[in-house]
Amino acid sequence: MEEYKKKKILCVGLVCLDIINVVEKYPEEDTDSRCLSQRWQRGGNASNSCTVLSLLGAPCAFMGSLSSGYVADFILEDFQKFHIDVSLVPERAQCDLPTSVVISNINTGSRTILHMNRNLPDVTAEDFSKVDLHQFKWIHWEGRNAEQQVQMIQQVEVFNRPLPPQERITLSVEIEKTREPLYQLFPHGDLVFVSKDVARHFGFQSAGAALKGLYSRVKQGAVLVCAWAEEGADALGPDGVVLHSDAFPPETLVDTLGAGDTFNSAVIYTLSNGGSLQDALTFGCRVAGRKCGFHGYDGIAEMSAL
Amino acid sequence: MEEYKKKKILCVGLVCLDIINVVEKYPEEDTDSRCLSQRWQRGGNASNSCTVLSLLGAPCAFMGSLSSGYVADFILEDFQKFHIDVSLVPERAQCDLPTSVVISNINTGSRTILHMNRNLPDVTAEDFSKVDLHQFKWIHWEGRNAEQQVQMIQQVEVFNRPLPPQERITLSVEIEKTREPLYQLFPHGDLVFVSKDVARHFGFQSAGAALKGLYSRVKQGAVLVCAWAEEGADALGPDGVVLHSDAFPPETLVDTLGAGDTFNSAVIYTLSNGGSLQDALTFGCRVAGRKCGFHGYDGIAEMSAL
Repeated sequence: MEEYKKKKILCVGLVCLDIINVVEKYPEEDTDSRCLSQRWQRGGNASNSCTVLSLLGAPCAFMGSLSSGYVADFILEDFQKFHIDVSLVPERAQCDLPTSVVISNINTGSRTILHMNRNLPDVTAEDFSKVDLHQFKWIHWEGRNAEQQVQMIQQVEVFNRPLPPQERITLSVEIEKTREPLYQLFPHGDLVFVSKDVARHFGFQSAGAALKGLYSRVKQGAVLVCAWAEEGADALGPDGVVLHSDAFPPETLVDTLGAGDTFNSAVIYTLSNGGSLQDALTFGCRVAGRKCGFHGYDGIAEMSAL
Repeated sequence: MEEYKKKKILCVGLVCLDIINVVEKYPEEDTDSRCLSQRWQRGGNASNSCTVLSLLGAPCAFMGSLSSGYVADFILEDFQKFHIDVSLVPERAQCDLPTSVVISNINTGSRTILHMNRNLPDVTAEDFSKVDLHQFKWIHWEGRNAEQQVQMIQQVEVFNRPLPPQERITLSVEIEKTREPLYQLFPHGDLVFVSKDVARHFGFQSAGAALKGLYSRVKQGAVLVCAWAEEGADALGPDGVVLHSDAFPPETLVDTLGAGDTFNSAVIYTLSNGGSLQDALTFGCRVAGRKCGFHGYDGIAEMSAL
């Protein structure tokens, strides 16, 4: 059991470069304005989730494609700074790293994101088949190339089958974007995060309604979680009871970039340490809320004792 | 005379990195959207002016500070690609290169710029005092650290004094930003570019009105030029006649970033080759207008024969 606890959490998904421009006022079209500050930050949902897990004190690893070149060096250095294992990261020499431009409004906390995906292919089921799964207790997928990801999950299910339940790898998936192919991930996680965006796309106007409406899509025994910004987050497990946590907004909203990834990580962190679903939900809202009160993630380190 | 013709045009000012995000629609605040394309481009007024001069066929050099690191390498490679002499560029190892994020709307041609100047100091009069002025026939200053720039100009005046008029270095300055200290540059150019922004700041509603109102600020015999976007550009010299050229808008407005720098370069190019002020004005409007019809500057190369 002690050995199991030391195992890592693996997050599979995107790493990109976020160029974050902090402004006092969202720029009007066709004007010139000056940023208060500008910084390069490692981004991408799975990559951000690793950052938060690591800051909370969980050993973790990232798996996702990386290009070569200076931007990739910056990214690798930053992973190392946060003690995130990148031994599973395949480097694609001929590709460009996805770069997002973020306009972060210091007065409202709003973050406006301009994505550019470039030409970097996602990791495949074949890449994943080379991974030694013994080192992990939890694997989280940021929904992207869903067909490949379903095959990866099936590989883990094969790995899990002969093991006693307490030694199995827990599987979680995040369905954040409103893209049809991602919805095939619903029946493949022990824990499924569905975003407010996706919930609304299905016509739901609250987290609770979304959970009840979408629960039939998840596998038997699974937990479905939906965060709804300032309204907090809800969770629904096999017992049919919708749990809720209010949001914990910071005194001043500073930076909401990565708040969703922070929430997911704090939920996974709590559950992977044996916490209850209600504890996980509350801790998720608490850490995500606190994160919105400062730039980046460093301030999360002080919260692991909460 | 042939030797004089072979001399270079030097542009003193800023080089920065422009991260250009081409969008179909200007992003609303707090949304996620996808760019049509994203590119890194060497930017900064003086640096852009060199690009255009070089594409028009004029030998030229750039003088401005550069940081070290990968971004600086990208910038240096790009200067070299355009055959721009960078032997006068001092490298400041400990600094960050200024980076601007540009949102370029492909449907309207609008460009929204977020500047970040970081900590890179401008070149000083002392840096400039080490330059061998014999290699230049024209020096253009993008108005920035004006007090230092006035001292640089005075150094050139001292250099010019013993020379016959046809061998002197012509001096031009650009006053683009509405910053009080820049206005001390007015009396220091043989050719002075004043922007629409600055003209309006002084209360003028047209290029012609601005030229008449501001001409008393320039030195005796100087030419004052003011471009006014889609209304074309005007020029006023010592004969008191306001010259005008209409704009030459492209069929489809694609990218107005650097159109002002393009105009300035085409004017300088024409005058430095002995063209008339009216020719310079018209060619400036023609090249700048054409430039707005494509991304970047490469398409200008085909115009040098115009």
